[in-house]
Amino acid sequence: MLDMDISVIPPLAGVVAIIVAAYFAHFVLSKSAGNKRMKELMDSIHRGAMTFLNEEYKIISVFVVVVMALLLVVSHYTDMPWQTAVSFLVGAIFSGLAGNIGMRIATKSNARAAEGVKKSFGYGLRIAFSSGAVMGLSVVGLGVIGVYIFYQAFIDNASLSTILFGFGFGASSIALFARVGGGIYTKSADVGADIVGKVEAGIPEDDPRNPAVIADNVGDNVGDVAGMGADLFESYVDSIIASIALAILVGYSATAPETVYPLLIAAMGIFSSIIALSFVRSEKNAYTAMRNGLFGSAIIFAVLAFITTHYTMPNLDPFYAILVGLVDGIIIGLATEYFTSDQRLPVKKIAEASTTGAATELIQGLSIGMMSVFIPILATAVAMILAHNYYGVYGVALAAVGMLSTLGISLATDCYGPVADNAAGISEMAEMGEDIRKKTEDLDAVGNTTAAMGKGFAIGSAAITALALIFTFVKSVEKAGISVNISLIQPEVMAGLFIGAMLPFIFSALTMGAVGRAAEKMVDEVRRQFKELGILKGKGKPDHERCIKIATKGALREMILPVVIAVTTPLVVGILSIDALVGLLAGATASGFLLAIFLANAGAAWDNAKKYIESGNLGGKGSEAHKAAVVGDTVGDPCKDTSGPSLNILIKLMSIVSLVFLPLFIKFL
Amino acid sequence: MLDMDISVIPPLAGVVAIIVAAYFAHFVLSKSAGNKRMKELMDSIHRGAMTFLNEEYKIISVFVVVVMALLLVVSHYTDMPWQTAVSFLVGAIFSGLAGNIGMRIATKSNARAAEGVKKSFGYGLRIAFSSGAVMGLSVVGLGVIGVYIFYQAFIDNASLSTILFGFGFGASSIALFARVGGGIYTKSADVGADIVGKVEAGIPEDDPRNPAVIADNVGDNVGDVAGMGADLFESYVDSIIASIALAILVGYSATAPETVYPLLIAAMGIFSSIIALSFVRSEKNAYTAMRNGLFGSAIIFAVLAFITTHYTMPNLDPFYAILVGLVDGIIIGLATEYFTSDQRLPVKKIAEASTTGAATELIQGLSIGMMSVFIPILATAVAMILAHNYYGVYGVALAAVGMLSTLGISLATDCYGPVADNAAGISEMAEMGEDIRKKTEDLDAVGNTTAAMGKGFAIGSAAITALALIFTFVKSVEKAGISVNISLIQPEVMAGLFIGAMLPFIFSALTMGAVGRAAEKMVDEVRRQFKELGILKGKGKPDHERCIKIATKGALREMILPVVIAVTTPLVVGILSIDALVGLLAGATASGFLLAIFLANAGAAWDNAKKYIESGNLGGKGSEAHKAAVVGDTVGDPCKDTSGPSLNILIKLMSIVSLVFLPLFIKFL
Repeated sequence: MLDMDISVIPPLAGVVAIIVAAYFAHFVLSKSAGNKRMKELMDSIHRGAMTFLNEEYKIISVFVVVVMALLLVVSHYTDMPWQTAVSFLVGAIFSGLAGNIGMRIATKSNARAAEGVKKSFGYGLRIAFSSGAVMGLSVVGLGVIGVYIFYQAFIDNASLSTILFGFGFGASSIALFARVGGGIYTKSADVGADIVGKVEAGIPEDDPRNPAVIADNVGDNVGDVAGMGADLFESYVDSIIASIALAILVGYSATAPETVYPLLIAAMGIFSSIIALSFVRSEKNAYTAMRNGLFGSAIIFAVLAFITTHYTMPNLDPFYAILVGLVDGIIIGLATEYFTSDQRLPVKKIAEASTTGAATELIQGLSIGMMSVFIPILATAVAMILAHNYYGVYGVALAAVGMLSTLGISLATDCYGPVADNAAGISEMAEMGEDIRKKTEDLDAVGNTTAAMGKGFAIGSAAITALALIFTFVKSVEKAGISVNISLIQPEVMAGLFIGAMLPFIFSALTMGAVGRAAEKMVDEVRRQFKELGILKGKGKPDHERCIKIATKGALREMILPVVIAVTTPLVVGILSIDALVGLLAGATASGFLLAIFLANAGAAWDNAKKYIESGNLGGKGSEAHKAAVVGDTVGDPCKDTSGPSLNILIKLMSIVSLVFLPLFIKFL
Repeated sequence: MLDMDISVIPPLAGVVAIIVAAYFAHFVLSKSAGNKRMKELMDSIHRGAMTFLNEEYKIISVFVVVVMALLLVVSHYTDMPWQTAVSFLVGAIFSGLAGNIGMRIATKSNARAAEGVKKSFGYGLRIAFSSGAVMGLSVVGLGVIGVYIFYQAFIDNASLSTILFGFGFGASSIALFARVGGGIYTKSADVGADIVGKVEAGIPEDDPRNPAVIADNVGDNVGDVAGMGADLFESYVDSIIASIALAILVGYSATAPETVYPLLIAAMGIFSSIIALSFVRSEKNAYTAMRNGLFGSAIIFAVLAFITTHYTMPNLDPFYAILVGLVDGIIIGLATEYFTSDQRLPVKKIAEASTTGAATELIQGLSIGMMSVFIPILATAVAMILAHNYYGVYGVALAAVGMLSTLGISLATDCYGPVADNAAGISEMAEMGEDIRKKTEDLDAVGNTTAAMGKGFAIGSAAITALALIFTFVKSVEKAGISVNISLIQPEVMAGLFIGAMLPFIFSALTMGAVGRAAEKMVDEVRRQFKELGILKGKGKPDHERCIKIATKGALREMILPVVIAVTTPLVVGILSIDALVGLLAGATASGFLLAIFLANAGAAWDNAKKYIESGNLGGKGSEAHKAAVVGDTVGDPCKDTSGPSLNILIKLMSIVSLVFLPLFIKFL
């Protein structure tokens, strides 16, 4: 009886999320996008983003078809159910859908937010934040609905878990392309635009004469909206799937409260997020407004989760496991804020180091980036042990669900960033005047801090989700009656650990090198346009389209190799040795977590050190210190927006690939 | 009978090594050190280096006394034999002695090598290389003699292994101080000298007007001679100790051939090195000469090891394990050469990226540094599995012995670098003319490549030695009758892994930050001297002593915290949970290995990209590309000479601390 009642809640929550998202979308689209110039700029950005997305979808389609074929073949020869191919496809489609909706609205709201600021600061904030909310709620809504559909449809199937893993694998695949491709796109445009524009020609950021400036604005959307959304969609569904699978693996039936519980908790998170979205209002301080929303949703969620646990579970232990994850996420967010905010000591130290040149500034940034791993890693290690103490491996998966529960609002905060950034760009390019420019810049400044916090959160949640998936994998192997020897004294496990720990370095090397190469092409093109078209002398007009094409082509070409490595490595190692594969996953998760935080925080700290100087400190704009800080900022760009975030996907994807293809590995034993 | 015969060989080899070292020392010291100016410069460098060493010894003495007291207390309450305190002391003294001898000769041979070049290029090469040979042979000679003494003295003691670990711990402690302190010293001087001298004042490298130039030359010696020597002394004795201990742990008696075998193999390595030292002669190409020496020694060693194995062991399996290690070392050396030589694609790519500015140059360098981990990690993972297949965990320790066997000559090659560097500096400062300057620069250029290869080798040998120590630790725990559960599904092990993998990042953050801070002080002092003394206007003379004091003080103060972390972390974690400690050691070794190679190779590649441009490519000296490359070189300095190498010590030290204090951990169970 109870089972019947409660299992309605998750899909209901999902549908509510979609309806509220639609409401926010309507709210944004009903606003004026300003004058003709603003609309033109908005349309250019929107078109550029959609072009990239469509081109990307073509490549993804090929990938999806190949993988589906592979899954069908494998399911023919092994115990893998053929429905895995279907759930894979749906997972990919749902992830793509969420990203598409989010990006469509984001690229329609930048000019509207800038125009809204005319009315009042708080009105502009509402428009920008509402567009972020569309993304946040689409992701959680589609995530819960998707998992629920497959859970219900195959509740009697003995291979329910594998089918769910297929859904996660689909989500992972989209995320990989979106994060890697989007990351390369955004930074090749940004670095290219900065080097020739800011450094060589000495024109300001977002100057419309810079041919790469639209590509740069498009990049913010494809990287930080579509990429971030797909990344967190993956973490979100993976954490739910892992806990359902672990509940079954540790002995609960598919209909037991323990098995539905993760979905219920996700539903509570959705309700909390929706309520807290209304807290994000302020005429003065956008940062405080968002913090109110984030903390508010966490508190509401904790209460709802407590009540849910009390009425559905035998004791409160799972609630504690969830709480551990929630608190871990908050700690990671606050630690990230400390190491990357220009109000705090670390960034100020980097800024001071830039008075002795770019080299010392970079050394200081590297040092601070590496130091910043301390709190997130320690907190997550402790969280894992605590969650495990409460409810074993299932508890670890619940901690991941807890951390991601309020994703509806935290993702809204993340996606707000690029919209505000674009709004600032449009107000500059459309020459909306000093006052509006200043207000949109204030919106943007908050976006930088929330973006850094969002990145820390995305990494932390990826790490704990990957851990849950690894534990799920080991339990699945044991369940299949195969003896695993994953002791560290086993050389195969240690070798797997070494190679796994190596992969994030190789992956980062590839993505960073890709940005370098693509950026050099962009630099050449911008230099050519400046020279041949005489743009700076006021003669010709910049050819934005060409720059967009270069970024698109570069990103799509460069993303293939990293993707292939991420998918094939666990496959090959798993066929050779399941023990080594577990070592590989553990090594990759530990090293990927560390490297991702180091890269993301170093990059954000360099960015904000530059902003700190630009706001008038240590000589301000144009000083030698500022020039040094610009170098640091540019180096940090691919670190924080390409290589770092891509690692989130790498560690989750390799684990989910291992889970999906376990029947294949068993066949090769 | 056989046992009696063969056990004489190791101490004999050790004594021969010392005698040959004395011969080379005599050879070097008998040569002329040139004119008065050259002698003055040499004496300044020598005095500066010795001052640092003496100050460092004071701090180390305090540390040694504290640790000895701790060991005596622990031995009183646990099963640890009190002799461990003695072997610890002797290990520390032997390591210090080897470093002292090597550095004394190195700082007496720079001017002599420069003067020798007057006679002929090959003569200068012989002098510089001979001084390196003094270091190389002192290290292996004292290493083998030290281990042999304790092995023989306590051959009937049930705790023989623990006493030997004490010796390794002593060596580790000196290495930690020497590497961390020396690394901070050398780079704070170098970075400080470069920023104000090369970048701001536009005067050349080694310009005598630069007040920090002597400190920079001193730094080369304390970092790359004393630091490198102590590092490899530690790896060398640890690998021998680990294999002796593992032989006993897997069931052989203390007098069995298997137990003496590692010492015998080390002896063969000494003989091979001594023979091959004579190959290093050339009037034209110093690089080819050294490569002949390195490959020659490897071939001779392989033959001797084969014969030794054939006559002392039941089958050839241990020989294969040793060969695996030897080949792994060569592969790592060649891979390092590929990624850091200015004749190869990676460095050329970095140089090309500098034409679009410092930022792209740095991004490219980061990317290539990360990519360079691929071959060393893969080769070492494969080597570990192969060696284990031949002879179990004992085989892995033998692989480490094999890799380090020809240390006598490979360390000579490493220590040649700073001598040649100093010789070039002296020829510039003493204005010995274009021709001599050119020849000493040729000597120096080879030194850069061999130094990079030496670093790669030092890291690789540290990693495989650490692995051998970890396996020794696990076997020791099992032997003590304690059940270890080091499966990766155990959350404590996974948490240990996470925290262990984090430590190299924190350690690097501290050492890199230390260089940044110390360099800023140096920059301020050099700026002050330029301004107040009017050095550049030819008025006053630079105050070198002050800069030496700043570097010394900075290094000594900044090395304390990293050292404390390295020693106490395994102690605390081991007392809490032995399982977590194993995870910690494995995580630290994997992540430390990766980070060390990344940092070392990125640094060396940036260095050589700058040299590539300076040799006339892409605009040559003074071009915009050159300026960008100088930034990259400066950022790379602490990466390759401070943070990277310090990690070698971290991973070995934590393992040996765990082994020494195992009786304490058992007490707390």
